[in-house]
Amino acid sequence: MARLFNDSLRTPPPIITLLTDFGASDVFVGSMKGVILGINPLAHIVDLTHDVPAHNVRAAAYLLQSAARYFPPGTIHVAVVDPGVGSERRPLLAFAMEQYFIAPDNGLLSGILASGMDVEIRELTNKQYFLGPIGSTFHGRDAFAPVAAWLSRGEPIETFGTEVENIIRFEIARARQESDRLLGEVQHIDRFGNLITNISREDLVSFVGADQLIRVQVRMADTRIGGLLRFYADAPSGALAALINSDGWLELFCHQARATDVVGAKMNEPVEVSMEENK
Amino acid sequence: MARLFNDSLRTPPPIITLLTDFGASDVFVGSMKGVILGINPLAHIVDLTHDVPAHNVRAAAYLLQSAARYFPPGTIHVAVVDPGVGSERRPLLAFAMEQYFIAPDNGLLSGILASGMDVEIRELTNKQYFLGPIGSTFHGRDAFAPVAAWLSRGEPIETFGTEVENIIRFEIARARQESDRLLGEVQHIDRFGNLITNISREDLVSFVGADQLIRVQVRMADTRIGGLLRFYADAPSGALAALINSDGWLELFCHQARATDVVGAKMNEPVEVSMEENK
Amino acid sequence: MARLFNDSLRTPPPIITLLTDFGASDVFVGSMKGVILGINPLAHIVDLTHDVPAHNVRAAAYLLQSAARYFPPGTIHVAVVDPGVGSERRPLLAFAMEQYFIAPDNGLLSGILASGMDVEIRELTNKQYFLGPIGSTFHGRDAFAPVAAWLSRGEPIETFGTEVENIIRFEIARARQESDRLLGEVQHIDRFGNLITNISREDLVSFVGADQLIRVQVRMADTRIGGLLRFYADAPSGALAALINSDGWLELFCHQARATDVVGAKMNEPVEVSMEENK
Repeated sequence: MARLFNDSLRTPPPIITLLTDFGASDVFVGSMKGVILGINPLAHIVDLTHDVPAHNVRAAAYLLQSAARYFPPGTIHVAVVDPGVGSERRPLLAFAMEQYFIAPDNGLLSGILASGMDVEIRELTNKQYFLGPIGSTFHGRDAFAPVAAWLSRGEPIETFGTEVENIIRFEIARARQESDRLLGEVQHIDRFGNLITNISREDLVSFVGADQLIRVQVRMADTRIGGLLRFYADAPSGALAALINSDGWLELFCHQARATDVVGAKMNEPVEVSMEENK
Repeated sequence: MARLFNDSLRTPPPIITLLTDFGASDVFVGSMKGVILGINPLAHIVDLTHDVPAHNVRAAAYLLQSAARYFPPGTIHVAVVDPGVGSERRPLLAFAMEQYFIAPDNGLLSGILASGMDVEIRELTNKQYFLGPIGSTFHGRDAFAPVAAWLSRGEPIETFGTEVENIIRFEIARARQESDRLLGEVQHIDRFGNLITNISREDLVSFVGADQLIRVQVRMADTRIGGLLRFYADAPSGALAALINSDGWLELFCHQARATDVVGAKMNEPVEVSMEENK
Repeated sequence: MARLFNDSLRTPPPIITLLTDFGASDVFVGSMKGVILGINPLAHIVDLTHDVPAHNVRAAAYLLQSAARYFPPGTIHVAVVDPGVGSERRPLLAFAMEQYFIAPDNGLLSGILASGMDVEIRELTNKQYFLGPIGSTFHGRDAFAPVAAWLSRGEPIETFGTEVENIIRFEIARARQESDRLLGEVQHIDRFGNLITNISREDLVSFVGADQLIRVQVRMADTRIGGLLRFYADAPSGALAALINSDGWLELFCHQARATDVVGAKMNEPVEVSMEENK
């Protein structure tokens, strides 16, 4: 313990983030924090979100990679959307993008791994870091949280378990070019009802060239949306419009309204970009 | 102040948790944190939950004891579900389970006190620790938060007020054995729609013996549920099933669905365990 | 970096609060925290609320001033309700009440500025503190968060931009006396359904005198409410009643029920105080 607190003079407090589908009305998340602080009272715990739709591993995978790239090297992310808790599904610890990721082996790391960067993945086989004999329903508290806390105290990654290769990954749908059109889909709907597509600025630039972005036309299903605007307030109130958002994705929105209310769009709705001026 | 920050080199930051029914859309909780940090900038504040149903002291009592046992000794818990704020109801500071609990005297500490451990309880009679003349509606900010902050700076518990004996406690319903059946009830419904009963693993073991847990049969009202499964994914999708959860309670659930949707159960719904194989 | 952490021995961790309309289901807030901690790992980040109704700058202005006065000098508040993000609207940094406020120039600081205290306001013109080339939709993460983090590391306020004078302010409706009545309105509805008016204790005292508060009568629209009670539990269950709350505002409430359900009141509903005993 003495060593731990002397270290605090030289190094910043370690960051542990939490991303779950546990919601805010129970004390699941609070209990995880108690476990972490009991092991490493210097940990700086950050909530990413606890409102992932229940059991929705794909949404969690998207949100985890969205947030992780804004955290400094060494950050430890604990992500728990875990319908298979207690079954044979493996608990994992990955090192990617100079950060650590602790999650069940159910596809939750798909977004992180899609970055194409080098990754080291281990199964949490060393149960001495767990919180006593772990139960059947809450590995977030009994396995993932204590592992994160011990890792944040400087335990080396290899002590937590053996390296594994084949973990579960989702196919992440990518935009694709088809003759004179760029085809993508809605990959996320945010709290404002904005529709985030999987068409990136890079996709658009390689489709039409950087100097021609001004000429692209966007459609979703039967709805013609028009060209790219510069910012939300550029659009007339209530009309569906498009821009490239701060994460570099093509985003469909209604200024001061909810695009989802106006257009009734759902996840995976097809979105199409073309160069036609009149259609 | 100098002493305070030199201490920080030797001791971990003190933990203050908050559990309220204040919700997330107001700044009630934010204001409490401002008050705490103004008194002790080194406090490590942890939210347990702020979504206790409004005025539901019983739910708060359950959630507080659920979370507290995962926090380290010395943790200070501030729990504010306080429909009687401003009236004659007393503000309390208790020391139990090597932790501190600050709450109104309205039954909120019933879960903590039911642990049967030694407890020291004081009324917050020393108003010098309050935030000026306190108002009528928000003792969380004006009384409980500053007391927690001063306590976290090392003020001894006896300076906050005089010891009291008779505080308000709820009867916490316990499972009971009746001839050849073990009778309990639903004591909590979690965010996933799972039904947590008040029947513990210990209750089950003393009812049938540890080696016979495999033979118990669970019923709720008119619904036969069956035997104990090992984990959620053990159950077919959509069927009501039972297991012993990570807190040691008998829990009724639907794998990847909400048990509350399937069975329409409510708080205090009777649950029955027997050894009959066919019924 | 060495200087930063040596400083930590002498000064408390700087407080950065966040108030937004980003909700809890996305990772917008989490990403802002990652950016802040990447620049100043010692920052103590406090959430005020992220559930401001989407795009509701007036509600944000009210909540920001409500919470800020409970924070210690030097606190840095980041407030982002920003429908004009990416447009010509200016990003601001203000110093008022010995605290810092970072927000878009859209009226969000109106509540703070209404305090009548001396204020220094700068436009964030120095883009070297932004997170690379900033995008069109998320200045909270790309501009406001990094500025807050650099400010918390001790960069002087004048390095962030040039002083400005005319910023956007809302008229904040004040209670006014009209012959023998004091007229105000509902300025906020809290999570419990309580109606907070813009009639302050000071307004009431200057209307009737401190010793006559007991004689005032409150009406809202066609509903006669009666005199001032001392606390919530003073009222019979279900009846609309009034008191002066802990922030010093006249508040209409139903004990253990939601006043909004009982009376159907909305924001800006007129509220009237008189001395008539029978009406």
